[in-house]
Amino acid sequence: MENSSKKRAVVSLGHNALGYTTAEQWDAVKHTAHALADLAEEGYDLAITHSNGPQVSMIHKAMTELRRIYPDYSPAAMCVCSAMSQGYVGYDLQNSLKGELLKKGISRNVVTLLTQVTVDPYDDAFYHPAKVIGRHMTAEEAAMEERKGNFTKEDPGKGYLRVVATPKPLEIVEIDAIRTLFESGMIVIAAGGGGIPVIEQNCELKGASAVIEKDSIASLLAEKLQADRLIILTGVDSVKKDFGKENEEALYELSVSEAGRLMEEGQFEEGTMKPKIQAAMDFLSVKNDAEVLITSIEAIEDAIAGKNGTRIKR
Amino acid sequence: MENSSKKRAVVSLGHNALGYTTAEQWDAVKHTAHALADLAEEGYDLAITHSNGPQVSMIHKAMTELRRIYPDYSPAAMCVCSAMSQGYVGYDLQNSLKGELLKKGISRNVVTLLTQVTVDPYDDAFYHPAKVIGRHMTAEEAAMEERKGNFTKEDPGKGYLRVVATPKPLEIVEIDAIRTLFESGMIVIAAGGGGIPVIEQNCELKGASAVIEKDSIASLLAEKLQADRLIILTGVDSVKKDFGKENEEALYELSVSEAGRLMEEGQFEEGTMKPKIQAAMDFLSVKNDAEVLITSIEAIEDAIAGKNGTRIKR
Repeated sequence: MENSSKKRAVVSLGHNALGYTTAEQWDAVKHTAHALADLAEEGYDLAITHSNGPQVSMIHKAMTELRRIYPDYSPAAMCVCSAMSQGYVGYDLQNSLKGELLKKGISRNVVTLLTQVTVDPYDDAFYHPAKVIGRHMTAEEAAMEERKGNFTKEDPGKGYLRVVATPKPLEIVEIDAIRTLFESGMIVIAAGGGGIPVIEQNCELKGASAVIEKDSIASLLAEKLQADRLIILTGVDSVKKDFGKENEEALYELSVSEAGRLMEEGQFEEGTMKPKIQAAMDFLSVKNDAEVLITSIEAIEDAIAGKNGTRIKR
Repeated sequence: MENSSKKRAVVSLGHNALGYTTAEQWDAVKHTAHALADLAEEGYDLAITHSNGPQVSMIHKAMTELRRIYPDYSPAAMCVCSAMSQGYVGYDLQNSLKGELLKKGISRNVVTLLTQVTVDPYDDAFYHPAKVIGRHMTAEEAAMEERKGNFTKEDPGKGYLRVVATPKPLEIVEIDAIRTLFESGMIVIAAGGGGIPVIEQNCELKGASAVIEKDSIASLLAEKLQADRLIILTGVDSVKKDFGKENEEALYELSVSEAGRLMEEGQFEEGTMKPKIQAAMDFLSVKNDAEVLITSIEAIEDAIAGKNGTRIKR
């Protein structure tokens, strides 16, 4: 069990912590908030970041339909939809969390800060877009996306998917504000969806057609806030060796070097577990004494008590 | 001209400072940001609140169309759309303002905080919804809105309009966070669209079907931040007596008692100038030595220099 001294944690929430529709989000967030309130009760200062894939995709679709019916409206870029999604998810999440805290008799401010993250326009990722967004498209729809300057890839037998670049995050634009609020004891929801990716250009920040990996930004946020713990909540209770195979094995403790070795062996899937392990390794390379915990919403209580989840240490 | 000592200002931006579509907003916000940067250059600490009528209406429409095409999506309540609009407007506004500041060589953090405002469920306003939202509807569309539990009113000769309640704001839920950021010298965009109206219910905040008058929240924000100045930017350069008539007269200086007298005479139109004058009077009743300036984006520079706009003092 944790001791009662004040500790700092950054929590990264995956898709399954939020659901896919407004109604699903409302339910899923309640469950997530319960787990987060437990962490606050344990004495953690908390900063929370979250995925926004389904949300930004819902908003983007809604804005596209709007234009079809009312052509007077101008298109909404991904960065604008991402800003909307931060407001939307933050609103549900902060209220659910505040409610769960009050049930425990804890009165803490929970706030949501709009967050942008700078990326390098020459990041190699822009030449190799790899992150799948949205749902399956037909070949004609995919061709139309390509004509608009977007990238798609075939998912054999299922159709086509849009892919975007996932550049490395450079700086969290609003880090001073996040830190100020966090250090005054508030629970801060920030960098939702990995943050709105922006490129610095002549004194201005321009929205970039990209998505920043949520785990990658969680790692940067944990570094900037000097967190003792980075908690990555995902769909599995713990990291597995030989995931999905007959000899699948749960890994409860990992050192950075073991994690690196397993990654080299190709044990962690691209786009799902690999970025989480990479985020853990990145964070631990700058904060020696910290710990990364990878687990699921369902197992978080046990994981905090040391009975489940994967702990990664230097 | 202002002296150079640090002063605190709350600025309230009306519809015309933001535009109606994503493209219009992008242009309008640039112009607005220029005026705001001038204020920052004059040495003001700034908190900014803004209207969101056209934005929340655009988002609400988009979410409604989305459901028509993809019925799996659950409906998005007004409070959810309002949260999205705060993210959307804040994103454009903070970036434009930051750009304008950098052009002047001023490096200040500009941040957007998701903001909720509590209202009283027994507020009389809920029984007399008066705020018009959205565009004109046909009689059938109006009847459908009424069946959904919404209120509409006839605009003779033009059709029907949806009306919502405008309850008095009680508390700004995130005021501690706003104050913390404001007092650390950051420019804070908060309570967009008057704030998301919420009702406290068993440890939880529930979204209310209402709109809080932007000017009313600006007044409360100015009070809570102990502002020296409340600046209300609207469509006219100054408050007028006999507005729109042949003998229309610009009012450059007003005392609270004069303002009250003119209001009683019915000089200020409901829903447009009256709430601004009321906001001014409310704020000055708690902050004796403060000043309220009502002017337009176009006239703000002259108004700050004392050559235009309406100044209201105790």
